[in-house]
Amino acid sequence: MGKTRITAPEGLPFVDIEREFDAPADLVFKAYLEPELVKQWLGPRQYEVILERWDARDGGSYRYVHTDGTNSYGFRGVFHSMARDSMIQTFEFDGAPGHVSLDTQVIEDLPGGRSRVKSHSIFMSVADRDAMVEAGMGDGVEDGFNRLDELLPSLQPVGAAG
Amino acid sequence: MGKTRITAPEGLPFVDIEREFDAPADLVFKAYLEPELVKQWLGPRQYEVILERWDARDGGSYRYVHTDGTNSYGFRGVFHSMARDSMIQTFEFDGAPGHVSLDTQVIEDLPGGRSRVKSHSIFMSVADRDAMVEAGMGDGVEDGFNRLDELLPSLQPVGAAG
Repeated sequence: MGKTRITAPEGLPFVDIEREFDAPADLVFKAYLEPELVKQWLGPRQYEVILERWDARDGGSYRYVHTDGTNSYGFRGVFHSMARDSMIQTFEFDGAPGHVSLDTQVIEDLPGGRSRVKSHSIFMSVADRDAMVEAGMGDGVEDGFNRLDELLPSLQPVGAAG
Repeated sequence: MGKTRITAPEGLPFVDIEREFDAPADLVFKAYLEPELVKQWLGPRQYEVILERWDARDGGSYRYVHTDGTNSYGFRGVFHSMARDSMIQTFEFDGAPGHVSLDTQVIEDLPGGRSRVKSHSIFMSVADRDAMVEAGMGDGVEDGFNRLDELLPSLQPVGAAG
């Protein structure tokens, strides 16, 4: 319950992620769209998120920095599409310029006011995928989703079922 | 000489393309950047290119339609980066919504005023890659590059070596 499932298939440049949330899909989607919400959950817990740009619409772009005061890590990309059933964006880490992945995310409703995020990332090579996994991609995603999980109840309309 | 090499490796969601041109890399790059030039060579010869948007810069986007008067095929995407040694953009065909590829192109100088375009495309699945190849991706690319080949001499500065 509430854990993230991360799959990195042998020999293919993919990472697949699934996570369920105890909130409707539209509410989770809102937490992806609005900069004030995104910066409360995106990425590992020990870092502050400096959201330099988050223009979550078709043709928009983003840039953010994770910092713990000593070390900073920047990320940027463009939003190809930003519908709830087709969130498609590029992703590049400043530390690996030119190594870009394409992430597709879908948020679908489940019974009982719950929802599921499904993510499929493709990389330029299997080596790029392996490097990202070894750099701790899984921990960062899990941490971010746990924070999102904690944030969601505060976004529920008053009186809505939990 | 002058032909396009297209590789679709077994079991991996990639297409790799190489093509040499008898013009310097900067001139070929110019033909990728400027809408007035792009619409003279992009895609198969039998179609007119209607370039609805071509904002070739980091964070820009594009949309174009190939039409022969009877049939029309639309394509769109965003430019993640647009440097000569790192042109990275998404690509989606209207006829296969949600099936997006990420194309990386590099234009490098060769001796004798020549240059080489190297392209690496990644797809969401091997099936997506196979469908794109079967739809005639190779012919479209070859045709476009042949047209670009024909266009380049007219862009050479007067008095430059051919």
